[in-house]
Amino acid sequence: MRASRFFISTLKEAPSDAEIVSHKLMMRAGMIKRLGSGIYTYMPMGLRVIRKVEAIVREEMNAAGAVELLMPLVQPAELWQETGRWDKMGPELLRLKDRHGREFAFQPTSEEVITDVVRSEIKSYRGLPINFYHIQTKFRDERRPRFGLMRGREFTMKDAYSFDRDVAGMQQSYQIMYDAYTRIFNRFGLKFRAVAADNGAIGGSGSHEFHVIASTGEDALVYCPTSDYAANMEAAEAPSLLASRAAPSQPLEKVSTPQMAKCEQVAEFLKLPLAQTVKSIALTVEKEEGAKEYWLLLIRGDHELNEVKVNKVEGLGAFRFSTEAEILEAYGTVPGYLGPVNTKLPVRVVADRTVANMADFVCGANDKDYHYLGANWGRDCAEPQVADLRNVVEGDASPDGQGVLAIERGIEVGHVFQLGTRYSQDMNCVYLDENQHPVPMQMGCYGIGITRILGAAIEQNFDDKGIIWPTSIAPFEIVLCPMGYDRSETVKAETDKLYEALLAAGVDAIVDDRGLRPGAMFADWELIGVPHRVVIGERGLKDGNLEYQGRRDAEAQQVPVAGMVSFIKDQLKR
Amino acid sequence: MRASRFFISTLKEAPSDAEIVSHKLMMRAGMIKRLGSGIYTYMPMGLRVIRKVEAIVREEMNAAGAVELLMPLVQPAELWQETGRWDKMGPELLRLKDRHGREFAFQPTSEEVITDVVRSEIKSYRGLPINFYHIQTKFRDERRPRFGLMRGREFTMKDAYSFDRDVAGMQQSYQIMYDAYTRIFNRFGLKFRAVAADNGAIGGSGSHEFHVIASTGEDALVYCPTSDYAANMEAAEAPSLLASRAAPSQPLEKVSTPQMAKCEQVAEFLKLPLAQTVKSIALTVEKEEGAKEYWLLLIRGDHELNEVKVNKVEGLGAFRFSTEAEILEAYGTVPGYLGPVNTKLPVRVVADRTVANMADFVCGANDKDYHYLGANWGRDCAEPQVADLRNVVEGDASPDGQGVLAIERGIEVGHVFQLGTRYSQDMNCVYLDENQHPVPMQMGCYGIGITRILGAAIEQNFDDKGIIWPTSIAPFEIVLCPMGYDRSETVKAETDKLYEALLAAGVDAIVDDRGLRPGAMFADWELIGVPHRVVIGERGLKDGNLEYQGRRDAEAQQVPVAGMVSFIKDQLKR
Repeated sequence: MRASRFFISTLKEAPSDAEIVSHKLMMRAGMIKRLGSGIYTYMPMGLRVIRKVEAIVREEMNAAGAVELLMPLVQPAELWQETGRWDKMGPELLRLKDRHGREFAFQPTSEEVITDVVRSEIKSYRGLPINFYHIQTKFRDERRPRFGLMRGREFTMKDAYSFDRDVAGMQQSYQIMYDAYTRIFNRFGLKFRAVAADNGAIGGSGSHEFHVIASTGEDALVYCPTSDYAANMEAAEAPSLLASRAAPSQPLEKVSTPQMAKCEQVAEFLKLPLAQTVKSIALTVEKEEGAKEYWLLLIRGDHELNEVKVNKVEGLGAFRFSTEAEILEAYGTVPGYLGPVNTKLPVRVVADRTVANMADFVCGANDKDYHYLGANWGRDCAEPQVADLRNVVEGDASPDGQGVLAIERGIEVGHVFQLGTRYSQDMNCVYLDENQHPVPMQMGCYGIGITRILGAAIEQNFDDKGIIWPTSIAPFEIVLCPMGYDRSETVKAETDKLYEALLAAGVDAIVDDRGLRPGAMFADWELIGVPHRVVIGERGLKDGNLEYQGRRDAEAQQVPVAGMVSFIKDQLKR
Repeated sequence: MRASRFFISTLKEAPSDAEIVSHKLMMRAGMIKRLGSGIYTYMPMGLRVIRKVEAIVREEMNAAGAVELLMPLVQPAELWQETGRWDKMGPELLRLKDRHGREFAFQPTSEEVITDVVRSEIKSYRGLPINFYHIQTKFRDERRPRFGLMRGREFTMKDAYSFDRDVAGMQQSYQIMYDAYTRIFNRFGLKFRAVAADNGAIGGSGSHEFHVIASTGEDALVYCPTSDYAANMEAAEAPSLLASRAAPSQPLEKVSTPQMAKCEQVAEFLKLPLAQTVKSIALTVEKEEGAKEYWLLLIRGDHELNEVKVNKVEGLGAFRFSTEAEILEAYGTVPGYLGPVNTKLPVRVVADRTVANMADFVCGANDKDYHYLGANWGRDCAEPQVADLRNVVEGDASPDGQGVLAIERGIEVGHVFQLGTRYSQDMNCVYLDENQHPVPMQMGCYGIGITRILGAAIEQNFDDKGIIWPTSIAPFEIVLCPMGYDRSETVKAETDKLYEALLAAGVDAIVDDRGLRPGAMFADWELIGVPHRVVIGERGLKDGNLEYQGRRDAEAQQVPVAGMVSFIKDQLKR
């Protein structure tokens, strides 16, 4: 490519609505252009990156035996009604009506459509397994779109759907996709981590998220540096930090803790470790005919509640936090002074695993400005129900017993999921087995946020000059910067010669023939993030040299003209 | 590709809603699958054709200096309001609202968005010319979607937009696109014709349609076999068939023509040539405050009215056909007996060029069941306004004076258009010229109906067995049909060897390893339309031969195993 035939548009300053690095840099590098809230035009420079990401995804999906098709964006409401998602999905689902008033969804994913395709196309066990995918525009009407391509409304996703005869087959299809994803993210040249994810109603270990590691990531990833264990915060099992419960050694004592509604304040005031305190969280579950059920969850004072884990406690699928009026009714006091001892009404108490093994703990006294010291299970209140309720923290024992947990930040860019018969049952997507019996197909679904990859790659790879693309997804692999392309015959000739040689060698090069001054030219390409650069100048050519610099290199190096192509091919391989 | 890893789904019968050949064959060949009215899933076999079409379009657009980007599907109403198209476009424009009630259009084309991009990105004459394109999903909410991909609602289009400093620049950009289109359609391997099209309000010769020639095409294409003249029916100028008007030789005579409302009936009854009769068409134009203006258009009895030409007559931009009540009011009679002589109210009479030169003609007498014989302009009624009102017919003189016109049928698959400042003025898309004066940019737009190409290619290339794809856009270039892949070691080995050799030679081959019987296997590939086939069988191998047959060949031919790859490469080049 020649820059004069391309479109390059860089900005010194990012627009004020760009909050995070990747959004700022993509705007400044002219990769995207905002059309509306969460809606972007992919400018030529950005589109090149998207196409490279798509090509890698496509190659690996095909190599893994998945078959590409393309499903429509505008999908009839009737299909979404078959699975109930038409009603269940909130305003994120963009709904529209055609000229005849018929209702449609703008696809956010395509489970319904692919299941409809498969139920009419595949009738026999002989047609299974099959895995269909497409790379297609999606729309999710986010309440608060932001961060550029990270949380846009219109975006591009690769979504694949596998169909199998049985659970074992589904798990095999799932593993094939897991392995393909690993190859894909490796080819992107990004540091990533696959973590076990919460699988909702389906259970089992049937869901993994693929995260690009970045300190700015929204998600906390839990992993064990000395084993294979990795999970997201919702799925990471928190162990009890106490192997067993000690016998009570203190009497129950009610102490004044004036205006100390937080465990930290109480611990400091009482000069006790925070780990001796228990935090009480009051929940309400609404039952039929206006009846309410009150629940009290207990976690150690230094821990954090994990609401997804709470959701999984039987009976808490539809919990909400109690109001102050409900707290007054159930506990006779105000928030900050609740506890499991002497509640006003009977409440269902669930203790986190660690809390369940605590003795002589500090908790609210259900009386404003008072806490109990020396509270003990069984003696001062009933034994609690026990559950994993908290976020793990660094240093917790790994659930596989192979070490302790560490935590890092990530950006979710892929998700593989064992769906089972969630969709095939609602939509009667069955095959006839060897005995001609109809059996619902076992499904899996597998997504990669194509456009999100760009944001994630930048969050992981940037410096104060701009983006640093991994070579495999860079808009161009290398930029040739001639010093005086329009002034020096020698420079022009050597530039063109090198450019042609690189093209012939299959290198994706761009020549900057715009006639910019060196400073502006270099700044553009450092901002855009092309990973390799060769400067062609008369001075170096006198010694038979060109100047090479990798985007991360502190210094340029002189490379003989004759060896440049093979030198570059070596650099590209690194 | 191996068929066992692909998805092939053929049908013996097309669904009943498929009316035309291409729709039937695409359904039967498993290329598309209906999701809703005018909305199709592109199945794996069809998607391969789409990708090949896209690749050719992309290569030639890039070679012509156009720059690819990708504009959003969901576009804010505000932009469409700037050009007035939000209100002007009817229900074809799919409108939608987001969760906040803001209005958007699902793009049918992207003039507004690209003009918005360019007005903020390009400020100076130095940035021009530029031509941006994208290949993107479109939605047009057709009142009556039909014919599969020919008239769908959701479809894929390549749309390009050029921006120039002045009209000469725009015309140059237009010519570059015209030439690129010619290369594109040549590479598709389709017989096509570029015809001048009606340019609406802009005038000049600034619009051409590219049609794939097919006897089933919706559009009539007019061309001169002995010159370069070609136009669509709306743009083809119809000459007067009479060089000058003869003097009146007959008196005006009112004759009884009972129940003969059609020229054909009158001519037969009076034993006169049809070319002596004149057809009268009554139009109404509604003026302000309920006033009506009556117009009478006259064409020769054997000619057809062209409504687009009528539209271009000054004052008839918003005509409609008169109602029977209006006809009674203006002419005092019923339809079928109208004429320019003795109308009840004064009406504006427009005669087609040929009619204007007729003498002693037959026309309605404005009296039920009566016609006039021997009517003459100037003598029996006032001289008419003259205009080109009719469709040309075969044998008409070519407007360039280089021969006579012929007519063939075509399917419109591309359109190039000089827009001028239609959009840039409404949207204030200006550049600063050398003197820092703001000048509106001169635009052009250029579309290719990517998915429509599939339908058009089939309408041009099929037989009773199925589709016959041109090699360049076939889903696979060649199919290898082993006779007993799973039974014969020799057949399997030779098949795999040939397949690998073809892949290495860059040939897009598929091996049918599904284990079908020969008849079913051949029928599938003839239906799907893969243009080249090699059969690998034990019988032929005994003599060292394989059997080659082109999709259009009546007979197969034996080709020695050793020479097969180069033989096939020769076939692919033809």
